[in-house]
Amino acid sequence: MCSSDLADFLSPARPASPLHTETMPEKVALIGSGNWGSAIATKMGINAAACSDFEDEVKMWVFEEYVKLEDGKWVRPARGAKPPEGKQWTDEGYEPLTKVINEKHENVIYLPGIPLPPNIVACPDIKEVVTGATMMVFVIPHNFLAPIVPKMEGAFADGAIGCSLIKGIEFEKGGEFKPILISDLLQVEMKKGITGDWNVDMSVLMGANVANEVAKGDFAEATIGCTNEANGIKWCKLFNTPDFSVSACTDVAGAELCGALKNVVALGAGFSDGLGFGGNTKAAIIRIGLKEMQKFCEVFYGDRSIKASTFLESCGVADLVTTCFGGRNRKCADIFAKNIVAGTKKDWATIETEELNGQKLQGTGTSEDVMKALKAKGVEKDFPLFTMIHKIAFEGEEPGKLITIAPTKYY
Amino acid sequence: MCSSDLADFLSPARPASPLHTETMPEKVALIGSGNWGSAIATKMGINAAACSDFEDEVKMWVFEEYVKLEDGKWVRPARGAKPPEGKQWTDEGYEPLTKVINEKHENVIYLPGIPLPPNIVACPDIKEVVTGATMMVFVIPHNFLAPIVPKMEGAFADGAIGCSLIKGIEFEKGGEFKPILISDLLQVEMKKGITGDWNVDMSVLMGANVANEVAKGDFAEATIGCTNEANGIKWCKLFNTPDFSVSACTDVAGAELCGALKNVVALGAGFSDGLGFGGNTKAAIIRIGLKEMQKFCEVFYGDRSIKASTFLESCGVADLVTTCFGGRNRKCADIFAKNIVAGTKKDWATIETEELNGQKLQGTGTSEDVMKALKAKGVEKDFPLFTMIHKIAFEGEEPGKLITIAPTKYY
Repeated sequence: MCSSDLADFLSPARPASPLHTETMPEKVALIGSGNWGSAIATKMGINAAACSDFEDEVKMWVFEEYVKLEDGKWVRPARGAKPPEGKQWTDEGYEPLTKVINEKHENVIYLPGIPLPPNIVACPDIKEVVTGATMMVFVIPHNFLAPIVPKMEGAFADGAIGCSLIKGIEFEKGGEFKPILISDLLQVEMKKGITGDWNVDMSVLMGANVANEVAKGDFAEATIGCTNEANGIKWCKLFNTPDFSVSACTDVAGAELCGALKNVVALGAGFSDGLGFGGNTKAAIIRIGLKEMQKFCEVFYGDRSIKASTFLESCGVADLVTTCFGGRNRKCADIFAKNIVAGTKKDWATIETEELNGQKLQGTGTSEDVMKALKAKGVEKDFPLFTMIHKIAFEGEEPGKLITIAPTKYY
Repeated sequence: MCSSDLADFLSPARPASPLHTETMPEKVALIGSGNWGSAIATKMGINAAACSDFEDEVKMWVFEEYVKLEDGKWVRPARGAKPPEGKQWTDEGYEPLTKVINEKHENVIYLPGIPLPPNIVACPDIKEVVTGATMMVFVIPHNFLAPIVPKMEGAFADGAIGCSLIKGIEFEKGGEFKPILISDLLQVEMKKGITGDWNVDMSVLMGANVANEVAKGDFAEATIGCTNEANGIKWCKLFNTPDFSVSACTDVAGAELCGALKNVVALGAGFSDGLGFGGNTKAAIIRIGLKEMQKFCEVFYGDRSIKASTFLESCGVADLVTTCFGGRNRKCADIFAKNIVAGTKKDWATIETEELNGQKLQGTGTSEDVMKALKAKGVEKDFPLFTMIHKIAFEGEEPGKLITIAPTKYY
């Protein structure tokens, strides 16, 4: 049975993917098991178990690692370490992570302390995970795609649909440097395993979703960007819980690009904080940033039905606000600006090393790529904030110039 | 001469108000001289002096008070104090505030430390201030209107236009308890002094504008809500400076209501903070709040061309973000929720007294009024966040229920 929140959607005939038999429950595969993948597993697992639309079991692909409990803490071998000559890690007291996840129903490495629903079954074999799958959720670093996808060998069901939770953006390496959606890359990759004339219809899930907060059950919202309402509703039903409110819009490109471009705006918000500007200024940076995000989507994906309303969804304004007040891009940009003002300029790599404990900044790389794309298209002048952020971050412009980007248009 | 930012707008024939001769410069009156009134005077003064569209001098109405420099600080007599029998305050070493402002070009009481342009001339006589005025800027507590307006005796120019900077909202006292725009109230009041068949066309200026930050010259944006583009451009030209970026939208009601309703949402943001919820949750509250602000405008002012884009202007998302992170409503709601959780519940009046140093909360009163209006119209169910905020603030609901307001609609 579905939870009561879903009751409205049970009576009418459920829209089905074109090649999938409507009366069969969906078989869900979760491809990824990091911090965010494990967090979202808590929502998917509940719904798969509770709702007859889905098969109970959800296989979760895990990049296999070896783990051991030491002094009450789960640890892995040092990075790059190998087991002693002729031995396996299991000979050294380690266990496969998949085994530990399936016994303890907890991802002890990437989401410690949060119980996973027992119907989430960890599996190191990607082909096994996707075999017969009708709904595939992708939540892996996108440079994992290339090595993984060929191993699927098209084992997923005919008419299977996909949903990307991967935040990021790629760019053509050629002269025009056009942005490429990760969801499009995924579709192209999946196509290689498909015989027959169809594509994996790709949706995305984006939003103001700090993984640990979602996992703890703090209330959050998220947005499905989808190509059609029927598939949008399917994804909503899979992810939506009382503490995770998911709604859909038919705007894949808008929703997905928000998740990447927000990190550029967060650099601007961080500069503003680092310069000691107050709430007015920061709010203006965020607002102008949201408008430039929208314009970027329209300039590069105008043929993909970008909707203004997308930017008022969780994937737009809410994720942007969270990132501009709480994220690592804001924090490092704050430090960057403060150091310039103090005459002790540090480069981004130094700040990253000192502040992020091995994590990476996304906003700086995205800023560089976005700038190349804007220049290639000759539209920098329409993006005064993105352009100024790039100048401050990479061209030695003084941070105080941030606030000289006011548009002079009255209407 | 106009500043270079305004150059674009000088060549074409300047749109004129219907009864005002196009070749005459506008005569600007500033009605109000508190913290925000004095802050905005810094922008208006610069433009009036620099731009041939305006007469140089801007008269500023000041509610006359008496002030004296004591130990380097300007002070007033104690509240309610009277000068000794048969004496005036001036006999006791006090000077009129208007005289001090005009000598020092500084509002030493309400905006100390910030120079006012010398063409801003303080005047205690409201009729003198508005005599011959073609553009009137209102920035007074709206309960000052009733006593002041009759004294104007319609002395302003035929065809004069007005702009309200007053944030707030009134409600009909009758059964339906409909919201009333302050700008509409102003128009009705001004009409009483008008002979002939015309009204003062009213615009509003709203936005993320903490007065002291605007006065210091920190970069900020603002939005003019106007009934027509010609008047919108006039107001933009009067207020816009390089550090105060003003743009216009033809949506008076949307822009004005944002300025009042944001304070209700800020209570929700404060509850979220007080409960220790993280960034996801707060961003969701802000986002849902912005959508309910929009819906409120559409429900009550659907006949006044509410525009979705208004909510992406400074008056919408930017002012809301500032208020939900920095304002007094957020702060007091945070304390309110924390005390309930700790079992030491305090009422709003106590928190106000303890925390606000004589200032008033706006969000609580607005929440009560908004709730009455929603109930009278029978639309509470369409406003789950506003309704829950009211329940927590006034009906003893536990603050944790804040996050049970998730809409269950997927589209």
